[in-house]
Amino acid sequence: MSEVEKRLAALGISVPEAAAPVADYRAFVQAGELLFISGQIPLKDGALAATGQLGRDCSLGEARAAAELCAVNCIAQAKAALDGDLDRVKQVVKLTGFVSATADFTDHPKVVDAASALMAAAFGDAGGHARAAVGCSSLPLGVPVEVEAIFLVDKR
Amino acid sequence: MSEVEKRLAALGISVPEAAAPVADYRAFVQAGELLFISGQIPLKDGALAATGQLGRDCSLGEARAAAELCAVNCIAQAKAALDGDLDRVKQVVKLTGFVSATADFTDHPKVVDAASALMAAAFGDAGGHARAAVGCSSLPLGVPVEVEAIFLVDKR
Amino acid sequence: MSEVEKRLAALGISVPEAAAPVADYRAFVQAGELLFISGQIPLKDGALAATGQLGRDCSLGEARAAAELCAVNCIAQAKAALDGDLDRVKQVVKLTGFVSATADFTDHPKVVDAASALMAAAFGDAGGHARAAVGCSSLPLGVPVEVEAIFLVDKR
Repeated sequence: MSEVEKRLAALGISVPEAAAPVADYRAFVQAGELLFISGQIPLKDGALAATGQLGRDCSLGEARAAAELCAVNCIAQAKAALDGDLDRVKQVVKLTGFVSATADFTDHPKVVDAASALMAAAFGDAGGHARAAVGCSSLPLGVPVEVEAIFLVDKR
Repeated sequence: MSEVEKRLAALGISVPEAAAPVADYRAFVQAGELLFISGQIPLKDGALAATGQLGRDCSLGEARAAAELCAVNCIAQAKAALDGDLDRVKQVVKLTGFVSATADFTDHPKVVDAASALMAAAFGDAGGHARAAVGCSSLPLGVPVEVEAIFLVDKR
Repeated sequence: MSEVEKRLAALGISVPEAAAPVADYRAFVQAGELLFISGQIPLKDGALAATGQLGRDCSLGEARAAAELCAVNCIAQAKAALDGDLDRVKQVVKLTGFVSATADFTDHPKVVDAASALMAAAFGDAGGHARAAVGCSSLPLGVPVEVEAIFLVDKR
């Protein structure tokens, strides 16, 4: 088991099987040293763990749990891309956190912080990443948050 | 004619002249092996081919046609960047599909799938890309969809 | 003083101290030759210089001033990343301009143009960048615009 997964296991988090994309795209593509992970939604065991919109019908706590799950799913995709060895991640480079939110919602960073904290917990110093957090009018399947990621890895 | 354009021609699609940006930015910039294409909107022959918002006044079919056109315009920019030779594209790395959508819309992936399918049709295996699809409250000029792209090419 | 800062000073603009992120992420991360800057908001001297939404309670002029400030803050982060020497920027590669906007707003490019123009003014030919401008339902802390950036720099 990778050191990354050991750290997550200590927090009670296991890295799931990566979900397959449902159309003509891929869950990840590596270009040079950069591993691009497709936008991940809060799927757990094949089912949506959360739906709703911040400021309307999704609480900050629910959205933070969903954001953490999105981050776990990004890590699951990275594991699949790296032949199962997450210790090959040299750096989490960038997260973009898309938060489904009403016009008056202002706490997008607090939602996406849950994804950022998970990366820090999983990767330690290598988990520090650049980030943007923005509000979306809606997201696929009605989820409250979607997170995409870029990882630095060895060039293939 | 490039193999890419032959494949598109077989589908009845020709790659148009690339549209010039209208302000102090560029339609594309290459950095190392990555070619970044600015967000493309559904322009055809210099005119908007679609306006409206999903869930309000733009149907899924209209939006899918617009998304395909955005993808064609991304390819047109890549052609301009690569001195006319689209066969120099080594991989479509990433698409981001921005969909103008109401709060209750949930089918963003079905819209952006039309752009993804066009990339697969044009580039074959090299067309497989990472992707995010998100909902926007509105988009430039009232278009229903905007697509940006990153391509992998030879380092200059 | 860098040539970049001299050009900005001639326009009456000084590059401020970079603001620290407030959670488990970083204001910038370099991966290879690419320097990723986290989404910047219109903070000035530690306070929000603008709030509101385009089409509702923020004018185009206010939003353009906010977008320019976001660009200045991106440059401030790049300065911090590059040990104070902005002349090490080889190219502004990509800006993404997130504009808080109502469903009927259509002038997102005019807002983000102010950020693009600032980059052109600061970096000259190296300031030309790829770009996307999109509408967000809301943004962190209620700001009208957020800008993230990617710069090309020497590999470390």
